[in-house]
Amino acid sequence: MLGRLNHVALAVPALADAVARYRDMLGATVSAPQALPEHGVTVVFVELDNTKIELLEPLGEGSPIAAFLAKNPKGGMHHVCYEVTDIVAARDRLVAAGARVLGDGEPKIGAHGRPVVFIHPGDMFGTLTELEEV
Amino acid sequence: MLGRLNHVALAVPALADAVARYRDMLGATVSAPQALPEHGVTVVFVELDNTKIELLEPLGEGSPIAAFLAKNPKGGMHHVCYEVTDIVAARDRLVAAGARVLGDGEPKIGAHGRPVVFIHPGDMFGTLTELEEV
Repeated sequence: MLGRLNHVALAVPALADAVARYRDMLGATVSAPQALPEHGVTVVFVELDNTKIELLEPLGEGSPIAAFLAKNPKGGMHHVCYEVTDIVAARDRLVAAGARVLGDGEPKIGAHGRPVVFIHPGDMFGTLTELEEV
Repeated sequence: MLGRLNHVALAVPALADAVARYRDMLGATVSAPQALPEHGVTVVFVELDNTKIELLEPLGEGSPIAAFLAKNPKGGMHHVCYEVTDIVAARDRLVAAGARVLGDGEPKIGAHGRPVVFIHPGDMFGTLTELEEV
């Protein structure tokens, strides 16, 4: 069922500092920041040869990463995202296995404009896990 | 400087449970467990189309992931590993930028038999970051 690793998301308190470090110290190719107000984050993509890292900074009130950064003020690893070909079939398989899908259980349109679900980290050994239909 | 994302490492308290979940619920291809006593872990590779996830369980006394699991008993995201072509040049660039390299600052032979360095998470916005020469 799992295809590619779509991305790894890292929450950071200040994008400008993180961008400078990834670009200047690690020599990475980084995108311009993209504000995604409907998702409560501003994102920068660190483009790697085989996948990407998403650096996330909170945007606006009620950002979904605000609580994480309150607990981890320096930032940290937030989630991983795997690609699947059929998000509804994937969701059904999760539910049948007894895993909790966040929200109301229905796939939502994610930050890339494609349907996603998030699996509760308590059902994935502490790792918040996103599945994205591609 | 950064090449491919070599792997994402996830610490888990019990590999057998994690393997069952990744294989049976997510339909992932998982390797047989490999004991790496010199690195204090047993590892299972979740093979994806573009990279791999390493599920790590502590092995023996003084495992490098024991403290992490004491703090995160359910498990969690432990580190990311990027490929570089010259580990000494990479290390020199980190040090010149003021980042802390774990240990004595010299590259060590990592779990894949290649030279690696780890950057202190406090200098990478809370993310433990490994560089591996390939």
